[in-house]
Amino acid sequence: MNMNTFHNLSYGVYIISSLDGSRATGCVANSVMQITSSPATIAVSINHDNFTNNCIEASGKFAVSILSETSNPELIGRFGFHSGRDMDKFEGIDSVQKEGLSVISDACGYLVCNVINKMETSTHTVFLGEVVDADLLKTDPAMTYAYYHKVIKGKTAKNAPTYIPEETTTEEKWVCSICGYIYDGSIPFEEVSNNYKCPICKQPKEKFVKQ
Amino acid sequence: MNMNTFHNLSYGVYIISSLDGSRATGCVANSVMQITSSPATIAVSINHDNFTNNCIEASGKFAVSILSETSNPELIGRFGFHSGRDMDKFEGIDSVQKEGLSVISDACGYLVCNVINKMETSTHTVFLGEVVDADLLKTDPAMTYAYYHKVIKGKTAKNAPTYIPEETTTEEKWVCSICGYIYDGSIPFEEVSNNYKCPICKQPKEKFVKQ
Repeated sequence: MNMNTFHNLSYGVYIISSLDGSRATGCVANSVMQITSSPATIAVSINHDNFTNNCIEASGKFAVSILSETSNPELIGRFGFHSGRDMDKFEGIDSVQKEGLSVISDACGYLVCNVINKMETSTHTVFLGEVVDADLLKTDPAMTYAYYHKVIKGKTAKNAPTYIPEETTTEEKWVCSICGYIYDGSIPFEEVSNNYKCPICKQPKEKFVKQ
Repeated sequence: MNMNTFHNLSYGVYIISSLDGSRATGCVANSVMQITSSPATIAVSINHDNFTNNCIEASGKFAVSILSETSNPELIGRFGFHSGRDMDKFEGIDSVQKEGLSVISDACGYLVCNVINKMETSTHTVFLGEVVDADLLKTDPAMTYAYYHKVIKGKTAKNAPTYIPEETTTEEKWVCSICGYIYDGSIPFEEVSNNYKCPICKQPKEKFVKQ
């Protein structure tokens, strides 16, 4: 089985938000798809280990913020490579309230859903949500997963269904220990300013490790 | 609720094949996503009215052929806008046998799956398949649904979860009555050669209707 085949499946990049009691939290997901058109339902796949899974289970609702090509990649670092158990992910993030859920203002659109069914798998829950509100927020094109990898050069979190361990190479590289971003600037990493920050998760230069 | 928001969800374009007894058949789907990474599973959503749904249910297996930007758009017309009840969709189509299923040779990759679970909805079944074989067939980029709409100018079948009825316009247009392709050539349609064929489903000029 050639695991690279899975890279040819096409996805968007989404922030799935829900409620921990009255506190907003969320995570990044690629696995979102429409299931029925009328009534409109969508499915989203969330790892059991993601705190957002517990929150969707408990609250029975979630929102999908659809990231665009111009959305700040820091959102992916913040929501995709940290846990809502340990931090308030929405602190300092521009968001709007839709049907009681927080939606990212910098997204190109959003869908708010009530959970109506779910399918359990070994590591992920597939939640089926009936869409109760949806709107566009800007006209910029939606970010695809391919765009995230090729243009933003972002990485995949280990909890994602699409995670494939990287093959080892003999080439030396500097990798952000927080989000996995691989430095690809023209200046050797050692000579980069000490003010350098990871473009994905904004962690400082000292969080990079040589691999 | 703004239904145009659903256009911002990103998908690929796939041919889902299965078996009607020993005969290969299939349909087009956009709703395919990976659910777990190890073991690798994927979910696919198929309308109850699609013959392929019955065939997956009965045979317990399906294959996903991942179309690329260079795959022949006729494949979408043939597999997406006709029923396998009425025709042998694989007749004359180059295919390869993988784990007993027919895979489109003109695809950029394929996944073969055994059904291990399913979730029913009002109109679609979400099949969860454990991937038993996967490989790349060519290096051309996978076709996204956005590419299909923008570059190939293809339409959405009425059975698709992503189908949204078109808004009526006062502008006159010539539409393929088989697949919904809208003629957009520079020559007025009436003056186009009688040998003209729909670029999606290859039906002749007389199948076009003025709307």
